[in-house]
Amino acid sequence: MQDKLTLMIPGPTPVPETVLKAMGRHPIGHRSGEFQAVVRHTTEQLRWLHQTKADVLVITGSGTAAMEAGIINTLSYGDKVLCGDNGKFGQRWVKLAKAYGLDVQVIKADWGQPLDPEAFKKALEADNGKTIKAVILTHSETSTGVINDLETISKYVRTHGKALAIADCVTSLGACNVPMDSWGLDVVASGSQKGYMMPPGLSFVAMSERAWQAHQQSDLPKFYLDLGPYRKTAAQDSNPFTPAVNLYFALESALGMMQSEGLEAIFERHARHRAAAQAGMKAICLPLYAAEGHGSPAITAVAPEGIDAEQLRKTVKEKFDILLAGGQDHLKGKVFRIGHLGFVCDRDILTAIAAIESTLQSLGLHKGNMGDGLAAAAAILR
Amino acid sequence: MQDKLTLMIPGPTPVPETVLKAMGRHPIGHRSGEFQAVVRHTTEQLRWLHQTKADVLVITGSGTAAMEAGIINTLSYGDKVLCGDNGKFGQRWVKLAKAYGLDVQVIKADWGQPLDPEAFKKALEADNGKTIKAVILTHSETSTGVINDLETISKYVRTHGKALAIADCVTSLGACNVPMDSWGLDVVASGSQKGYMMPPGLSFVAMSERAWQAHQQSDLPKFYLDLGPYRKTAAQDSNPFTPAVNLYFALESALGMMQSEGLEAIFERHARHRAAAQAGMKAICLPLYAAEGHGSPAITAVAPEGIDAEQLRKTVKEKFDILLAGGQDHLKGKVFRIGHLGFVCDRDILTAIAAIESTLQSLGLHKGNMGDGLAAAAAILR
Repeated sequence: MQDKLTLMIPGPTPVPETVLKAMGRHPIGHRSGEFQAVVRHTTEQLRWLHQTKADVLVITGSGTAAMEAGIINTLSYGDKVLCGDNGKFGQRWVKLAKAYGLDVQVIKADWGQPLDPEAFKKALEADNGKTIKAVILTHSETSTGVINDLETISKYVRTHGKALAIADCVTSLGACNVPMDSWGLDVVASGSQKGYMMPPGLSFVAMSERAWQAHQQSDLPKFYLDLGPYRKTAAQDSNPFTPAVNLYFALESALGMMQSEGLEAIFERHARHRAAAQAGMKAICLPLYAAEGHGSPAITAVAPEGIDAEQLRKTVKEKFDILLAGGQDHLKGKVFRIGHLGFVCDRDILTAIAAIESTLQSLGLHKGNMGDGLAAAAAILR
Repeated sequence: MQDKLTLMIPGPTPVPETVLKAMGRHPIGHRSGEFQAVVRHTTEQLRWLHQTKADVLVITGSGTAAMEAGIINTLSYGDKVLCGDNGKFGQRWVKLAKAYGLDVQVIKADWGQPLDPEAFKKALEADNGKTIKAVILTHSETSTGVINDLETISKYVRTHGKALAIADCVTSLGACNVPMDSWGLDVVASGSQKGYMMPPGLSFVAMSERAWQAHQQSDLPKFYLDLGPYRKTAAQDSNPFTPAVNLYFALESALGMMQSEGLEAIFERHARHRAAAQAGMKAICLPLYAAEGHGSPAITAVAPEGIDAEQLRKTVKEKFDILLAGGQDHLKGKVFRIGHLGFVCDRDILTAIAAIESTLQSLGLHKGNMGDGLAAAAAILR
C-alpha cells in the first residue's frame, strides 16, 4: 500500500502536514524583505528552543556540518581536546577532530553505557597547564540510545575555566532539557530532521561569547562553514550563501508548533514515550540496550537476545509499514531501535509496540502473552 | 496581493508545481530501498545533465559548498593555481583558494568583460615546470551577466597536461552546453536553485578520474565535504550523511521534466531568451553591462545610464511583483539584472520587458516609445 509509511527512526522523523505545506510554497528571493522577516522570526524561535541569548546560526547541510562548524570555528591545529566516545556519533567527533589535526584524548565508555562525568572531571583537574581547549561530546548517543550527562560534564568544563564545552545535541534538542546558557554550553550543534519535526537539510550551531572569542584565534581553514560571515549576515537577518529557502519556511512553521506546545510539555511527552517504550519492551522480555536509567528520550534501543533484530525490523516494515531503525556497525542484527523523537504522539508508541508484538508472535518469537507489552506501555501513557 | 511573486533573479529561480508537489510529500528513511532507488535514478539523470560518465555527487549545501569541495578534494596546501576573476563569483574562487593556503595567480578581466582565454594559454605555456595544479574559473559570471569561454580555456588546460580544470557552472549548467567529458573538465560545481528548476539546498560536484587521482594526494583538511565517502556511498546508491530527502524528490522530478524537454531544446530556449532580453533592452536604449557577444544565457545585466537601477528594480517589484536582481557590490544602483534561468518561458520574458517599460514610463524615464522593447523581444521570440 502506498503512502502508509510511518517513520520511527531517529531521523528523518515524521513531519506534520502543516510543516509540509509551509515548505511546499514557491520559493522567494533570499535577499528580500519578506525572507528577512522569516530569518528574524526563526532566529528568535531558535533562541527560545536553545534557551539562550547567544547566536544560533543556520547552515544548509546535515547535522555533521554543524558539528564540523563547531570544531573548525573555535579550535586551532594541534589543540588538545577531550572527546567522549560511547557510540557511533562519539566516534564521529573523534574522526572529525583528528581530520583537522587536533590532539585528541578520548574518554571512552562501552557502547550502551553512558560516559562517566567523573572521568572528565579527573582529566580536567589534572590539566594544571590549562592546555585542554575543548571538551567535545554527544548528548544523546543515537546509535545506542544512551543519554550522556551533559549537564554535569559541562559543569566540570566551566570549573576548568579555559576549555570550551562543545556538544552534539542532534537528538537531544527538542526532546529533553538543553538549556544552553544555564548549563554553560559553548557550542550546541543540531539538525532539522530530528526534534525540529521537519525534513533534513538544515543544521544549527549555537555559539557562546566564549566560543566567538575562540573563533578569533582559530586557524583551521574554512569557508562554507566559517561562522564569521554567518554571524555578520545574521545581524542583518540574512545568510552568507543562498540558504534552503523552503526548508526555512518549514522551520518557521515547525518551531511555531513547538512553541504552541511549550518546552515543558515537549520534554514531558518525550520522557513519557521513553518510559512507555521501555516498559513495553521489558514486558515482552526484550532487553534494553542502554544501561538502566540512561535511556535517551529520543530513541529506545532494544537488544532481543536470540532474535535476529534485522529480521524483526524488516518484518515489521513489510507487515505494518512502520520503519524502525536497525543497529549500526557491530550492532547490526543485534539491535533494533524505536525512534520516538519529534512529531510523535501516544498513539504512535502504542502502534509500534502492537506491531512489534504481533510480528514476534507471527515469527513464533513472542516470549510472553500477546498484549503484555501494550498493557505495560498503556499503563505509563494512561 | 499575496502569492503573485514572479522570480526573475538568478536564483532561487521559479519552480514548477510538479516539482513542489514532489518535494512536499512525507520524508522517507534515507537508508531505505525506496530512497536508494531515488539516488540511483537521480545519479543517472545528473550524468545526463553533465554529459558525463564521471561521478556526480550530491551535497546538502549551497553552490559554494560544491565549489569548496572541488578545491579541497583535489589540491594541497601551497599548490599553485590559476584563478579567473571577472566578477563577484570569480572573486569568491580567489577567496576560497586563499582560505586554504593555495598559491593563487589571478587572471583578471574588468567586470562586464569576459576572461581572455589567451591569458590562460600564455600562463600555462610559460609553466615549463608544470607547477600549476589547477585552473579555476566561473563559467557564467552571475554578477555581471558574462559567459566565459570555458571550452577554449579547458582546451588549453588539457594541452598543459598536468593542471586540473575546475569550473563553477552554477548558472551555466542547464542553461547552455557544458559537456563535461568532451570539454575535458575535471570538476564541475553547481547548485539546485538555478538551471535545475528546484529550490535551493542541494549542490552538485562532478569529478573526473584525473580529479579522483588528485583526491588521493590532497592534504587539505575536510570532513563534511570530503568527497571520498560520497563516492563510496554513491556506489551503493546512498549518502555519507543524512541528505535533504525532500529536495531529492524535487531533484528527481525536475530532472525528469528537463529530460522530457531535452538538452538541445533547453539550451535553445535559454539562448532565445537571452537574445530577446538583450534586444528588448537595447530597443529602449538601456545599455547591456556584459560586453557584446559575451552575455550569459542565464542572466542579462543592464546598466541604465542616468537611471537609479535600484529605484527601477524596486518599482517593478512594487507595481508588478516581478523580482529582478540588483547590482552586487560596486554595481549596486548602477545595474539591474533580468534572470532568465531555469523554468522560464517566452511569456515570462515578454512580461518582464513590459513591466520594465511600463515602470520606466511611469517614472518618466522611458527613452523611446512605450512598446519598443516588447516589439524587439517579440520579434526574436516569434
